[in-house]
Amino acid sequence: MNAADGTEPRPIRSGAEYIESLRGRRLRVFLQGAFIDEPVEHPVIRPSINAVAATYDLALDDPELASALSPYTGARVNRFLHIATSPGDLVMQNRMQRRLGQLTGTCFQRCVGMDAFNALHSVTHEIDARHATAYHRRLLDFLALVQRQNLVVGGAMTDAKGDRGKAPHEQADPDLFVHVVRRDASGVWIRGAKAHQTGCVNSHWLLLMPTMRLGAADRDYAIVGAIPVDAPGITYLYGRQSCDSRAMDGDIDAGNPRFAGQEAMIVFDDVFIPQERVFMDGEHEFASLLVDRFTGYHRRSYVCKTGVGDVLIGAAATVADYNGVERASHIRDKLVEMTHLNETIYGTGIAASHQATPMASGVYQADDMLANVCKHHVTKLPYEIGRLAQDLAGGLVVTMPAAADLEHPEIGALLRKYLQGREGVATEDRMRILRLIENMTMGRNAVGYLTESLHGAGSPQAQRIQIGRAMQLEFKKQLARTLAGIEPGPEAKPGTDDTPGSGNHN
Amino acid sequence: MNAADGTEPRPIRSGAEYIESLRGRRLRVFLQGAFIDEPVEHPVIRPSINAVAATYDLALDDPELASALSPYTGARVNRFLHIATSPGDLVMQNRMQRRLGQLTGTCFQRCVGMDAFNALHSVTHEIDARHATAYHRRLLDFLALVQRQNLVVGGAMTDAKGDRGKAPHEQADPDLFVHVVRRDASGVWIRGAKAHQTGCVNSHWLLLMPTMRLGAADRDYAIVGAIPVDAPGITYLYGRQSCDSRAMDGDIDAGNPRFAGQEAMIVFDDVFIPQERVFMDGEHEFASLLVDRFTGYHRRSYVCKTGVGDVLIGAAATVADYNGVERASHIRDKLVEMTHLNETIYGTGIAASHQATPMASGVYQADDMLANVCKHHVTKLPYEIGRLAQDLAGGLVVTMPAAADLEHPEIGALLRKYLQGREGVATEDRMRILRLIENMTMGRNAVGYLTESLHGAGSPQAQRIQIGRAMQLEFKKQLARTLAGIEPGPEAKPGTDDTPGSGNHN
Amino acid sequence: MNAADGTEPRPIRSGAEYIESLRGRRLRVFLQGAFIDEPVEHPVIRPSINAVAATYDLALDDPELASALSPYTGARVNRFLHIATSPGDLVMQNRMQRRLGQLTGTCFQRCVGMDAFNALHSVTHEIDARHATAYHRRLLDFLALVQRQNLVVGGAMTDAKGDRGKAPHEQADPDLFVHVVRRDASGVWIRGAKAHQTGCVNSHWLLLMPTMRLGAADRDYAIVGAIPVDAPGITYLYGRQSCDSRAMDGDIDAGNPRFAGQEAMIVFDDVFIPQERVFMDGEHEFASLLVDRFTGYHRRSYVCKTGVGDVLIGAAATVADYNGVERASHIRDKLVEMTHLNETIYGTGIAASHQATPMASGVYQADDMLANVCKHHVTKLPYEIGRLAQDLAGGLVVTMPAAADLEHPEIGALLRKYLQGREGVATEDRMRILRLIENMTMGRNAVGYLTESLHGAGSPQAQRIQIGRAMQLEFKKQLARTLAGIEPGPEAKPGTDDTPGSGNHN
Amino acid sequence: MNAADGTEPRPIRSGAEYIESLRGRRLRVFLQGAFIDEPVEHPVIRPSINAVAATYDLALDDPELASALSPYTGARVNRFLHIATSPGDLVMQNRMQRRLGQLTGTCFQRCVGMDAFNALHSVTHEIDARHATAYHRRLLDFLALVQRQNLVVGGAMTDAKGDRGKAPHEQADPDLFVHVVRRDASGVWIRGAKAHQTGCVNSHWLLLMPTMRLGAADRDYAIVGAIPVDAPGITYLYGRQSCDSRAMDGDIDAGNPRFAGQEAMIVFDDVFIPQERVFMDGEHEFASLLVDRFTGYHRRSYVCKTGVGDVLIGAAATVADYNGVERASHIRDKLVEMTHLNETIYGTGIAASHQATPMASGVYQADDMLANVCKHHVTKLPYEIGRLAQDLAGGLVVTMPAAADLEHPEIGALLRKYLQGREGVATEDRMRILRLIENMTMGRNAVGYLTESLHGAGSPQAQRIQIGRAMQLEFKKQLARTLAGIEPGPEAKPGTDDTPGSGNHN
Repeated sequence: MNAADGTEPRPIRSGAEYIESLRGRRLRVFLQGAFIDEPVEHPVIRPSINAVAATYDLALDDPELASALSPYTGARVNRFLHIATSPGDLVMQNRMQRRLGQLTGTCFQRCVGMDAFNALHSVTHEIDARHATAYHRRLLDFLALVQRQNLVVGGAMTDAKGDRGKAPHEQADPDLFVHVVRRDASGVWIRGAKAHQTGCVNSHWLLLMPTMRLGAADRDYAIVGAIPVDAPGITYLYGRQSCDSRAMDGDIDAGNPRFAGQEAMIVFDDVFIPQERVFMDGEHEFASLLVDRFTGYHRRSYVCKTGVGDVLIGAAATVADYNGVERASHIRDKLVEMTHLNETIYGTGIAASHQATPMASGVYQADDMLANVCKHHVTKLPYEIGRLAQDLAGGLVVTMPAAADLEHPEIGALLRKYLQGREGVATEDRMRILRLIENMTMGRNAVGYLTESLHGAGSPQAQRIQIGRAMQLEFKKQLARTLAGIEPGPEAKPGTDDTPGSGNHN
Repeated sequence: MNAADGTEPRPIRSGAEYIESLRGRRLRVFLQGAFIDEPVEHPVIRPSINAVAATYDLALDDPELASALSPYTGARVNRFLHIATSPGDLVMQNRMQRRLGQLTGTCFQRCVGMDAFNALHSVTHEIDARHATAYHRRLLDFLALVQRQNLVVGGAMTDAKGDRGKAPHEQADPDLFVHVVRRDASGVWIRGAKAHQTGCVNSHWLLLMPTMRLGAADRDYAIVGAIPVDAPGITYLYGRQSCDSRAMDGDIDAGNPRFAGQEAMIVFDDVFIPQERVFMDGEHEFASLLVDRFTGYHRRSYVCKTGVGDVLIGAAATVADYNGVERASHIRDKLVEMTHLNETIYGTGIAASHQATPMASGVYQADDMLANVCKHHVTKLPYEIGRLAQDLAGGLVVTMPAAADLEHPEIGALLRKYLQGREGVATEDRMRILRLIENMTMGRNAVGYLTESLHGAGSPQAQRIQIGRAMQLEFKKQLARTLAGIEPGPEAKPGTDDTPGSGNHN
Repeated sequence: MNAADGTEPRPIRSGAEYIESLRGRRLRVFLQGAFIDEPVEHPVIRPSINAVAATYDLALDDPELASALSPYTGARVNRFLHIATSPGDLVMQNRMQRRLGQLTGTCFQRCVGMDAFNALHSVTHEIDARHATAYHRRLLDFLALVQRQNLVVGGAMTDAKGDRGKAPHEQADPDLFVHVVRRDASGVWIRGAKAHQTGCVNSHWLLLMPTMRLGAADRDYAIVGAIPVDAPGITYLYGRQSCDSRAMDGDIDAGNPRFAGQEAMIVFDDVFIPQERVFMDGEHEFASLLVDRFTGYHRRSYVCKTGVGDVLIGAAATVADYNGVERASHIRDKLVEMTHLNETIYGTGIAASHQATPMASGVYQADDMLANVCKHHVTKLPYEIGRLAQDLAGGLVVTMPAAADLEHPEIGALLRKYLQGREGVATEDRMRILRLIENMTMGRNAVGYLTESLHGAGSPQAQRIQIGRAMQLEFKKQLARTLAGIEPGPEAKPGTDDTPGSGNHN
Repeated sequence: MNAADGTEPRPIRSGAEYIESLRGRRLRVFLQGAFIDEPVEHPVIRPSINAVAATYDLALDDPELASALSPYTGARVNRFLHIATSPGDLVMQNRMQRRLGQLTGTCFQRCVGMDAFNALHSVTHEIDARHATAYHRRLLDFLALVQRQNLVVGGAMTDAKGDRGKAPHEQADPDLFVHVVRRDASGVWIRGAKAHQTGCVNSHWLLLMPTMRLGAADRDYAIVGAIPVDAPGITYLYGRQSCDSRAMDGDIDAGNPRFAGQEAMIVFDDVFIPQERVFMDGEHEFASLLVDRFTGYHRRSYVCKTGVGDVLIGAAATVADYNGVERASHIRDKLVEMTHLNETIYGTGIAASHQATPMASGVYQADDMLANVCKHHVTKLPYEIGRLAQDLAGGLVVTMPAAADLEHPEIGALLRKYLQGREGVATEDRMRILRLIENMTMGRNAVGYLTESLHGAGSPQAQRIQIGRAMQLEFKKQLARTLAGIEPGPEAKPGTDDTPGSGNHN
């Protein structure tokens, strides 16, 4: 995929071409103890590929929504490869994310890469300003390459971590965080593993990044670079997820047969990155800045879950309709509650985009407080929306026989007789919508809708820490003291970061 | 199993004997489109049998807790077959239920039968008083039989229901609720289906009951009786549940390899019940009373989920320990929150038992308000406990490779290297505990811990209706008017059911 | 105040001039059974006047924030009198509202008028288009007048209502909703009462509007017009509120001595409105549209409460500091939680402004779904923020002796000895901050921060109804059916309002 | 009041006699900077006295509920003076507490003393066993005295505390915790202050107790004893509370004109306690045990708030009735929700009583876990019940004119015209019930229903700490490891306090 031979492949145009582009690569992928020769054809993996393909097709079907004019190539590019140069660009990302959630009902796996590019845009610019490095230009060159070829770029951040009480260099095994093991004029060699890698097998390139604040002793861990997914030395360990094997059993039992997410662990065994693809190497003091900038984008990217939530609300409303209870006031009220919760995520997320501010490099950075508030809701509200969907679904969602029973000549007739709901609703349709709800609340796509919502872009406590940092307590204490008539004391220091007027507090 | 030949089999003594008792029956069980010749040996079914077996073994290991002295046989019987003749008996049920939840981490499937016996004790007594029937004596005879033989009796209540806006006799297909299709001096023949039947394949007998208030036109639906599980004409359609096929893949991926619940649909095709086993036939005005009495017990039986919650709290604490973060204040606080929620269920449930009052038949009936409050918490709090468990588990709970990968000579080494947590913790143990959390929050036992908690014994709205009925608004309005100094008006009628002093309101 | 004599008074320039402008009017104001000769000097009323005065002073101190360039006068006008011609204008309203909440800790009473002007801008335009009336021009003339003179305009919407189950014309007393009782070429005479009128005594003009959907039989109730507050026939019945009489007892016990809100009932006894000030008269079919447009703005105007919330967070942090516990992890976590909740209101509210869309008249209308989501949070979250503030305050907030005790020669010494907290904190300061928390959570400003948050701009159910109307269920059901593989059925009708791409769902 | 002259006064028989017993004492009480000559006649104080009087009258009206047979006097005594010698005794306390909450709508102030006696029963017994002291006998003598005379005994625990980061002996001022300043053969002299003293002015005796864990250096702070309220050297500083001065303005505006709570600070200036009334002196290692035992009772005593909640539910239902909306599904649902929350408190509290266990002294101690769970709900749920009551009340609850307006000849007519609700409801009654809701949610009795619920018997974090101590993590971890198939490791130690079978966990 990378232009190793000097001639660039023609750009990918559609979801179908994207799927073709994945064939025949010699990735080293393991799933349930077995080497997977061609992931594209594997029934467990394919739905995750379809979800990525939807990001290509949407750019064709609704180019306003899912593509943008690149200042780097002068052409329209997929919005996932676009650098945001206005709040409106970030808002359009959110609208696209919600739409893709609606179309796939799952994680379409491209937000990490998009957010990584945007975060690196400002960070490489600032490293260069401090250290006279050339990272920003290199990043833009790489960006232009993937824009021209229209490729999928995954972001690889979360390390294996080992003992969470210890810094990278203190770990019993130095490889528990990815680090540079060799370095020469041509580039660097890295070793380690990245866990929870969304969509990595479905990507063309990986953007490797550190996962946390680093000290001087962790200098070799401060490495950022771009790596083709088929680089020598990489192994992918595919995660085993709830109900993933249902993909083998036909479309009804799968619930959402076409689409799914993907999580794998990537092991790097002395993988080479050439200098031109290195965007940070040793500037450890920028590691936490990069993480902050990235999460500033990524925590608001979870508005994708509101699109998934739309599907779940629709599924719950459909079940109520099939059961003939859609007019009951408590049913209606639960749909309103689901919507209220879903739109709370959307509102806080899109507000973070609207309230973005420009960085020195020209990229716009989402509002940090609101991005964290959005993500913090994402760690809770989908669980409650899911619970309410199960409430509307009724107990059948977990006691229903399999599609194979429906197809059985004798048993099938019994099911059609006894699982009928409101007149005119086919038993098969009722089973399909119930399996979709199962899929989204405890099955394969519950992984993305619930657990990944909880942990992706930082677990709940990470947002609380960030909210705590940004909450401007000194400013607020002064407001209160003034109204209470308390004379200004020594603790009210002017000129702190807590001055009014800054940030989102006005 | 039924004493058709006049000689009674010797009583079942242990879990192992119980499992033996299930072999060789010619039940008609279907699972995923296939007839199951011997359920005892089926890997998907067996864990549910083990869970029932635990109810036998606990009676041996802790007879004080799990058995009781029967006034009907003069011998100690399994507590699941015991009639509660004091609040203490009901409290002991709750303690036993919690303990079995702790030991199995799932639904052990015997509460419906226990609660059905207790509810029928008073209801048959009251029907007899009104109609001079002999139901109560028949019930006691049947009870003595199963006590002597130490059998498992399931309760079969929930009908298929069809269009929820219509009464049984108004349905397009009269069989959507179980009803009597023929009647003669020897007994009755019934037809229909019961859905969501917990543990039915693992039972020896079924107690058939109507599911809702019935009018005069629904007289044939007002049928209660005892049926052996292997009676001619019965078909069992086993439910397909999240991750049930993991049972095929070894113990680690299963999460909780030994124990699981069971839900199936039972289809009755003109099944005969002899007169001696009929406990209601046509007394439709007692149907709603029976449902109320049954749910009065059963909604408080959900304290079993606090035992399951104990396991999940323990699993979350173990993961925190393995990750080396067990001392972080927010981790500790989440364990406290999980406990607070879990004990809220326990406290309200056991209070319903302690506050029980005697019925005319001598059985004690749990407090209705508190039983409903307990169950209503059960429809929500396990979801939040589950979410917190996933929070403590970390993202690995949904991205972790399979046990087969761990066993792979090359991949296994990578996993051991990169999935190590705190020093001294084996990667396999970390995977085991994570799979247990997956099992309980989105896998096989999430069915029982979450969705069945939501819908079993009535969905949330059913409890709200019941709480609304019992909330004594007129009494409370009078309290308020008196304190506000409002003169008594025409709406304060003495002698209503809202008089102070009754029920739990004092 | 109105330019009856043909010469206009010079515009009000500052808070002080605003206060002067209120003197000497002969309003008919009653408070606790007494006629109030000069409200400006009344200690209970004055704090509410100070809060309005702050809206003038902020326009001087931060003109960018609190004023705007009027296209109607070509001059900068107070932002409360400005018509929003871009999403940015609405966003600036929210930023101003938050800032004024921070500065006053209470309701500054001008949002209803601002939102009424903006709502009437589009509605009068649309009535004119249908009925060839001249309402829009009249409205703009009136707007220009109050912009030139820089006046306070209150909005008067909520009627007395009587029996909520009956339409206006069905009420036992026709005056329970304000209606036209006489009409001639010069204008109309109205009768009735408006309840819960925020800041009415502190206004110069009132914008009278209907409160709900009206039918043809309610034609005389479809009246909109501008009335000077001192018009003959108006009586103001001032509300008695929690702790309002503390204003008599010095500044410490008052908690927030300078600022408070104002709620009164206005009784109209055949009050005249000349034709030029009538903006709707009988076009009943536009009544519900006007209410919807108004609430679309007003439900998002409640971001003012986030400014008040900032004060309360600051007060809670100050108390923690005074008690020496500000570093305890649970204290810190509660401040984070308060902030998370406060910013949820802000994020959803400001998102409604950012997502505004243009109306035919040129005004921008806030996003309806997000405005309702914002307001719905406002009905709950301030109560939780208030509870957490009381948690941090400690029990002293409700057991503390009065300021008069502190001033008592002997008792004062005891209080100074025993109410000391962390070293270096004066007992008086500790009492002041505790009284501020009391003021905001159960005292005078709790009225605005809590109860008015609950009921203003529609009680919680009003938002749920509106969310239900906008939730696009058919669109969402189609999303779900498509993913579940259900063939399109008759219920999926293209061309409904639920088509994708419209509104806020993308 | 104390039997100083050797002859005992005859016992108090009724509320009226109780009130008489309070007259003519020369207590040193200050309120708002003024010395109060006769508290009984002070309009702000009297409602709190009425609430205590209700505890006497209930013992006459319902002796089964509010009195008990004392093993120490052989006569029936007020239940507030009874030692619990069975779980049933504790349950009856809760039933009495709920009933008194229903009858008064406020705090009746006697639970601290009751719980203190019960806690001291076991603690003095255990001190004697360790130190061969005579505290238990002294306590029983004192108990018999107050039982014979039927007196009110308050418990005085919470110290002023000063800097919360320091131990008593480390404070800048040693008096910030009450301590012994002199000691001789006749007794001890104490100095310091107790804050938040519920009902102290309305008591006959005070039971002084330490407030926290004490070390050897705090030996002089380990003092327990009984003191008559009129002992020389005591000063009472009455708290100023929300809307307390409404008591001056007639019964309508007061909301609940007859009943209120009482909180004051007690300052002890070298107050003498004779040896016979000393129940602990220097046995510092028992201080934390005493606090734990006391809170074990007292945190479950907050079921009184469910009686208050009954009043508020009744008030909200009455308002809905007056507004003509009592049949709307969302109104009904909110009443159900209020009830569900209220009964959650009741269920967990009464469960703690039912699950009580005997101490060596013979007294029964409530279940610690459930008592803490109950109290922890009390810190939150009344706030939500209060919010829902305000929701049903409508905005009028904070905008309504005063009763003086209603009495005004002209204004009164306007109010009657415009504040009418459903036909047949008097405007005055509507105002009365709204003022009651104001009283309970932000006015005088909100102090007891909300803030005191939050802080009394320990603020929320105190319960979380206690729940954390009792949550048996090791036991639960072992449950999880066993089910997950993890081999027992070194951390599973048998014989810890986490063994199954103890406490409420089975």
